[in-house]
Amino acid sequence: MAPIKNGRLLFNDVPTGYPEPGKTTVYDESQTIDLDGVSLNGGVLVKILVISIDPYLRGKMRKPDPSNKSYSATFALGEPIANFGVGVVLRSENAKAKPGDHLYGTYPFQDYAVLPNVDQLLLLKNEEKLPWAAYVGAIGMPGQTAWTGWKEYAAPEKGDVVFVTAASGPVGAFVVQLAKLQGLKVIASAGTDEKVAFVKSIGADVAFNYKTTSTSEVLHREGPINIYWDNVGGESLDAALANAANGARFLECGMISQYNATPYTLMNLMAIVRNALHLHGVLVMQLLPKYRDEFYREVPGMVARGEIKYIEDAKRGLEWAGHAISDVQQGKNHGKSVIIVNEE
Amino acid sequence: MAPIKNGRLLFNDVPTGYPEPGKTTVYDESQTIDLDGVSLNGGVLVKILVISIDPYLRGKMRKPDPSNKSYSATFALGEPIANFGVGVVLRSENAKAKPGDHLYGTYPFQDYAVLPNVDQLLLLKNEEKLPWAAYVGAIGMPGQTAWTGWKEYAAPEKGDVVFVTAASGPVGAFVVQLAKLQGLKVIASAGTDEKVAFVKSIGADVAFNYKTTSTSEVLHREGPINIYWDNVGGESLDAALANAANGARFLECGMISQYNATPYTLMNLMAIVRNALHLHGVLVMQLLPKYRDEFYREVPGMVARGEIKYIEDAKRGLEWAGHAISDVQQGKNHGKSVIIVNEE
Repeated sequence: MAPIKNGRLLFNDVPTGYPEPGKTTVYDESQTIDLDGVSLNGGVLVKILVISIDPYLRGKMRKPDPSNKSYSATFALGEPIANFGVGVVLRSENAKAKPGDHLYGTYPFQDYAVLPNVDQLLLLKNEEKLPWAAYVGAIGMPGQTAWTGWKEYAAPEKGDVVFVTAASGPVGAFVVQLAKLQGLKVIASAGTDEKVAFVKSIGADVAFNYKTTSTSEVLHREGPINIYWDNVGGESLDAALANAANGARFLECGMISQYNATPYTLMNLMAIVRNALHLHGVLVMQLLPKYRDEFYREVPGMVARGEIKYIEDAKRGLEWAGHAISDVQQGKNHGKSVIIVNEE
Repeated sequence: MAPIKNGRLLFNDVPTGYPEPGKTTVYDESQTIDLDGVSLNGGVLVKILVISIDPYLRGKMRKPDPSNKSYSATFALGEPIANFGVGVVLRSENAKAKPGDHLYGTYPFQDYAVLPNVDQLLLLKNEEKLPWAAYVGAIGMPGQTAWTGWKEYAAPEKGDVVFVTAASGPVGAFVVQLAKLQGLKVIASAGTDEKVAFVKSIGADVAFNYKTTSTSEVLHREGPINIYWDNVGGESLDAALANAANGARFLECGMISQYNATPYTLMNLMAIVRNALHLHGVLVMQLLPKYRDEFYREVPGMVARGEIKYIEDAKRGLEWAGHAISDVQQGKNHGKSVIIVNEE
């Protein structure tokens, strides 16, 4: 077969505010790939089916800073960005994967990829016959973030009040449902009335649009809160600090309100001391080894049975990935953002 | 005996910035007390010998806010403020205390006090014959704060790097010495060269004056840090966030840089997420029941043997208590601030 187009989304420019499609990232069709002839070097050739668009990608669009010993790697300018996805094996030189197998792992944003290291990928059996996109959402990194963070740090007790931000998103919605499965009172915020309606439909006791209703007032009336799942930082974090019960646990998963803006000045930081709060940064890749087996044993069934519901915001084709990245940073997506890169 | 003067320090006005002696608090000599005749209602009459001046007192000089369910009580306007002290019993109607006994607990800022509830006071044996002021410093609430916070949250591991702010103060200096007893590398900051010299003398590996040396630069060179003992908040906290190792523990004990100023805007809050940090508010009164016996068994001996050193900034007479409160807020004290209220 003749070489065919291998579309890619390249990192082109470090953004200062919101990432812009066509500037921060550019979609490139200049590369071709010979699916029959490309050498695999002992690895696999994969056709990428779905790839995930997540808020944290913004954090990797920085200038590299070799003097900083502790930050995660940045994307390389001129190279494809990368994230979690599901691909189907076309050819394999590794006994652990055969053509037709579906593998979950980190892929470059391109139509096809040769991956030398099969051990970094997870073979998905998908006995529940769920859409592959579910494996980058509720059964992927976002679901794992909710599951592992909650298990490790939430320490829920009977009667606890939970506050969840970005509660219609794949992490927030999962947390809302975990908290409700444990019988807790859940306060949840989201950024559109449509999102709020979804959050109510999955069981939140109090759901509100933070753009039209004061988070402080809701928490003052419905709190104090014992558990805060923070996806947004800024003003919501400040309101949570001001309305936290003694000994409350804050699961710091993200601060999307701060990624593209000048930093918000927190007025209530002293609540950490006054109310003996506990704040924990949730990094799924650190927690996952402890919970991976349990997660893949429990969660696909929970999703299949509808115990964990989710909504999905899918775009078709890598050429839309830059737009999807921008939408997620601005909260314009409605549900888990995914790119359907190729049909099976 | 005729009634005598009972000097008191009254809370007079809620401060907006630094508390001012004569305005925020006023020293009052209008009250008298008949030491022989005053009725005890089953309690004790105590002559107060020493009383502690601590940074946290600023937090109780607020307007009362009954709608806030979680904050600590405020001082009452027109009444004496109160804090930890040591007094000697003059008369007693309770079998648990006899004249000449020394009791530790919370006292009003006055020369003499009748305390109905002896059970809230701790009988000090002081077998080491230490100065009574030590029992409001290294062997009092500040030492207990350091001891209990460290034991509960520091989780020290071999090779860890510790950063301590306000390191010449009674809490900070105790933490420096606990960390050195465990063989850890200690970076410590203080606000005058004289304080820095003391911090070096008690073993800090790196000690610097944060007013003349950049905290960020020191931490960047000497870190990353695994444990941060925060007494000051603001810029120091921001530098610690930027230079924290993955999984670092932040013991949030106080934020004195913020008590009398407009809030500082933290630039590095996302480090909590990126580096999976753990921040814990340290409230000694919540932790003390778990560690009290151990503390009073271990620490007086450690102080007597010089394993825990401290410096003391003593003023004589309650009329100076308002000045001492102001000095502590501004970092003008050198060592543990105490008022010697009366000679024995």
